[in-house]
Amino acid sequence: MTAIDATSLTSLLDGRYAGVRQDVRKALAERADLLDEVEELPRAEYRERVREVLLDVSASGLTGLGFPKEYGGGGDVGASIAAFEEMAGGDLSLLVKSGVQFGLFGGAILQLGTERHHDRYLADIVAGRLLGCFAMTEHGHGSNVAAVATVATYDPATHEFVIETTREDAYKDYIGNAACHGELAVVFAQLVVGGEERGVHALVVPIRVDGTAAPGVRIEDDGPKMGLNGVDNGRLWFSGVRVPRTSLLNRFADVTEAGEYVSEIESAGRRFFTMLGTLVQGRVSVGGAAIRASEVALTIAVRYALRRRQFEASSDAEESLLLDYGQHQRRLLPLVARTYAMRFAQEVVRDDLHDVFSGVSTSEHARRELESRAAGTKALATWHATRTIQECREACGGAGYLAVNRFTALKADTDVFTTFEGDNTVLLQLVAKGLLTGYSSEFEEMDQLDLVRFVAGLAVETVLERTAVHKLLERVRDVVPIAGEREPDILDSDYHLTMLRFREEHMLAGVARRLQSGVKAGREPGAVFSTVQDHVIGVAHAHVERLIHEAFRAKVRELPEGAVRDLMDLLCDLSALSVIEADRAWFMEHGRLSSERSKAIIAEVNRLCRELRPHARLLVDGFGVPEELLRAEDLLG
Amino acid sequence: MTAIDATSLTSLLDGRYAGVRQDVRKALAERADLLDEVEELPRAEYRERVREVLLDVSASGLTGLGFPKEYGGGGDVGASIAAFEEMAGGDLSLLVKSGVQFGLFGGAILQLGTERHHDRYLADIVAGRLLGCFAMTEHGHGSNVAAVATVATYDPATHEFVIETTREDAYKDYIGNAACHGELAVVFAQLVVGGEERGVHALVVPIRVDGTAAPGVRIEDDGPKMGLNGVDNGRLWFSGVRVPRTSLLNRFADVTEAGEYVSEIESAGRRFFTMLGTLVQGRVSVGGAAIRASEVALTIAVRYALRRRQFEASSDAEESLLLDYGQHQRRLLPLVARTYAMRFAQEVVRDDLHDVFSGVSTSEHARRELESRAAGTKALATWHATRTIQECREACGGAGYLAVNRFTALKADTDVFTTFEGDNTVLLQLVAKGLLTGYSSEFEEMDQLDLVRFVAGLAVETVLERTAVHKLLERVRDVVPIAGEREPDILDSDYHLTMLRFREEHMLAGVARRLQSGVKAGREPGAVFSTVQDHVIGVAHAHVERLIHEAFRAKVRELPEGAVRDLMDLLCDLSALSVIEADRAWFMEHGRLSSERSKAIIAEVNRLCRELRPHARLLVDGFGVPEELLRAEDLLG
Repeated sequence: MTAIDATSLTSLLDGRYAGVRQDVRKALAERADLLDEVEELPRAEYRERVREVLLDVSASGLTGLGFPKEYGGGGDVGASIAAFEEMAGGDLSLLVKSGVQFGLFGGAILQLGTERHHDRYLADIVAGRLLGCFAMTEHGHGSNVAAVATVATYDPATHEFVIETTREDAYKDYIGNAACHGELAVVFAQLVVGGEERGVHALVVPIRVDGTAAPGVRIEDDGPKMGLNGVDNGRLWFSGVRVPRTSLLNRFADVTEAGEYVSEIESAGRRFFTMLGTLVQGRVSVGGAAIRASEVALTIAVRYALRRRQFEASSDAEESLLLDYGQHQRRLLPLVARTYAMRFAQEVVRDDLHDVFSGVSTSEHARRELESRAAGTKALATWHATRTIQECREACGGAGYLAVNRFTALKADTDVFTTFEGDNTVLLQLVAKGLLTGYSSEFEEMDQLDLVRFVAGLAVETVLERTAVHKLLERVRDVVPIAGEREPDILDSDYHLTMLRFREEHMLAGVARRLQSGVKAGREPGAVFSTVQDHVIGVAHAHVERLIHEAFRAKVRELPEGAVRDLMDLLCDLSALSVIEADRAWFMEHGRLSSERSKAIIAEVNRLCRELRPHARLLVDGFGVPEELLRAEDLLG
Repeated sequence: MTAIDATSLTSLLDGRYAGVRQDVRKALAERADLLDEVEELPRAEYRERVREVLLDVSASGLTGLGFPKEYGGGGDVGASIAAFEEMAGGDLSLLVKSGVQFGLFGGAILQLGTERHHDRYLADIVAGRLLGCFAMTEHGHGSNVAAVATVATYDPATHEFVIETTREDAYKDYIGNAACHGELAVVFAQLVVGGEERGVHALVVPIRVDGTAAPGVRIEDDGPKMGLNGVDNGRLWFSGVRVPRTSLLNRFADVTEAGEYVSEIESAGRRFFTMLGTLVQGRVSVGGAAIRASEVALTIAVRYALRRRQFEASSDAEESLLLDYGQHQRRLLPLVARTYAMRFAQEVVRDDLHDVFSGVSTSEHARRELESRAAGTKALATWHATRTIQECREACGGAGYLAVNRFTALKADTDVFTTFEGDNTVLLQLVAKGLLTGYSSEFEEMDQLDLVRFVAGLAVETVLERTAVHKLLERVRDVVPIAGEREPDILDSDYHLTMLRFREEHMLAGVARRLQSGVKAGREPGAVFSTVQDHVIGVAHAHVERLIHEAFRAKVRELPEGAVRDLMDLLCDLSALSVIEADRAWFMEHGRLSSERSKAIIAEVNRLCRELRPHARLLVDGFGVPEELLRAEDLLG
């Protein structure tokens, strides 16, 4: 392989947003002191410092890229996600506070509001003059947003909504910007108009005036957290809080002065999911940030492994480099490969998001597929980050435990990524629901019980025929190997893809069959769902793995012949074979892998690790994390 | 199953040390405020507070149980480990500072020193009047202790040793009690006597007098860490520090006034390993503490899952409890079963330790087996803790992220358990080395290269014949099932054990064969080791898994017939089948599991989870974690 410059890998990863990414990297590098500084700051000062730096960064325009230009934004949704992802190279409280302010709060005003809200708030939000909250989650209801128990009742006499926390556990919880800095909150509440319940809607509610809680609003601090202590999360209670009728974010539904509820979307369930659909940006953002955090961790751990020697292993005279140990290669290199794969998969979902939110893709089906892909990519990317950062910490031994070496913050701050913007397990169920229903328009309104009943009413073939993977599989069915027969080349990318597609379709059919037989046997749909749940999660997992591999493969294929392509080809093989290896039991159980072939895959993963070993430094340098952000001087030498 | 009282499970788990454990639980519960208090304390105050509480607890005698009675100790090694394990229910900085002071520092004086050191120091150490350090690890050498570059040169003119930090990276690092409170340090250094290098020895060196560094000693603070910030870890440099000849801890080797080196152990390598053998107590302690921390996490997560409802799943009217979801059962219940298994495996290693260190077992072979078992149990117990605490945090969603709910400290504080007292990967290599050499006396002196050469020189059969598992297997070989033939009952405990034994022996033979063929092919021993390293780690893993299962099984068998035994039987099945399930690919690859049987095992794990679901609360209550230590009021309801 001819020499490759790390910057060519960085360009490949940066793609169309190279300029924006470089700007963010520069902005973070200039403020790298923040990483040292906040380590010792008490919580209150940490929060103030993060606010200060956030406003400073905002002034450069890098946090407002997703807003329309007329309000001071950049008018480029994709660029705003790319910038956010890149911000995860720095202090993650800064990242998350930015996400709360510009993604969730600002995003809700933009997506759920109309001109009157835009004109009134957006310029101030983009400039950071007006900080706000996204008050959706309640203490008693995290993932099940449809069940929130905050109520907004329309009072036709005064043309106001009255906001009320109706149950002990219905206070809004974990709300960023709530404890200190937020003046407004977008509050999600059950709308009651003329005595009729209309489902969850969002309203703009002032929560703080001149630094103290607005009348009727009670605010509590969530206190110290595992990480992200630079973000002021808090709790909100509402007691008879009155806001004008025009506070309702009325893009999808409105209430007239006379108290008439109007909406172009007839079904309450669909209206709710349309509103929730605006959350998709948050999910795409968190997934991308998780990948970036993994890149920082891997850069440190790989560079340490290329400097640190321990025990004489290759000669009696000198201790060996950690990365010359087979086990150490196994720990780190498949994670590097996977991180490249995730990065390309993230690119696809980011582009899809851009197209849907910029009006390039307008079909409802495209939007539903985007939501599913965003949910699935977020889940796998954030679990990947948790796993990768942990492995990297352990691979740096005791030194990895010192705060100066970054793993402390990376671990603690990213830990909640698997939970917020949708619990990963719940998100994978959403992915499975899409698969099982072929992203039909009805699916948005189904809960778990409806889903069981729906699937039980279809033939398994019908379930399968509606899925894209089925159509793809038909074309390649001939090449799905049967264990022991016709073994394709172990490095054949078609083979990898076929295996992943086969697994997905087979699991999907299995879930449909189990749901049906459970219902036919007369068992309660809820009990049936509980029993089949691990398969439901499994099929979603398999689906997203296939999408990730397809993204990596497509990226490799569009590269010109040459050293970069050859290297990416190796990485793509390692990534795909690691996935197959991890689930090789399943492939054997389903007759698609002989025991010999299975062992050959393990050996091939080891061999690929050895082959990639000389390129390890190049591969992490390709992530383009500025030296200033790595800290860890001691680890990097 | 008739009703079981949680206290009967607690008694079962507590075993012979029930009294000591209850005393520690009471002591921690009385000081439970510490958990709240330290959350907001700046580091310096946190350290002082931990010191204060430690001295307070010490006054009760609970931290000195392992020391001889004549110095104010309890004269009971096993009890001291049990007390330490139990302390992991509270603040973990308190635990680790206790471990540094009484286990490592005090333990080194006791185990490596002789009467003159005991008389001079032990009473003050036990009473907490004299705090000290265990200065072994160097910045440049963590796991490879034999390579430390601190040197102690005997000066016959003054009858002193001169201690010197000889290389830039040879300073002692991560040393507990060094940054603030330690007055003495047991320093591990290369001994040079009459110009001759004698290998690593330990000396008592004053490092701090009246709060300032002793002459020639430089002390630096390690600064903020991921967790355990109540422990004052620091760095030590020595420059021409002179200590009297009698400072050498001379149980295994001494230097006469005239400068003659004398030792009853002839081989330098063996002497070194004999000294290191005293570390075994630390490993047993950390393993036990990791298990206890897992119990705290599981108690919170299971109780939360029995209170928290989310989504309508079993009926349209009410949301379901988290633990009624199949996936949630899968997340938590196998971990509960595994924790019981680990607890019983820990009991065995603790008892072995007690016997060896109380002189009940006196053979060298028993000591070497203990060292191996301690290393392996520590590795699996600490990885189990990392995984369990993470899973429990995620299973508690956003609430799990708030510091008040304990996961913050549990995660951050236990994270380094996989590294300290021996990096887990290095420890598993030690286990494998013992297996490959049959714990022969030579093995202690072998490095990786020696090991490769040694194994390459033996017939594979010879390697196997020397192992205990081989002898065991011969008796049961008839019942090792062959895939597809003679399938024993899936819940047959003999079947589980046979499978685990078969895996261990087969992997051991595989490693031996690979090492041999590599050497025969003319490859460098170092390169051969690197290639085979994942198998080396794998066989150690398999070995320890077998020991864990045997311990659980033996415990179940000694129980009287009845409800407790029936419940433990179920748990033991779940624990064993989860292990087999996790590695079912291997069993299929090696012809011991048909694909149908493999699928049946997955289904059986699910079924066992459902069967154990009604007992979930009982099982975690059995851990006996005092309510005061759980905090998490909000999660527990």
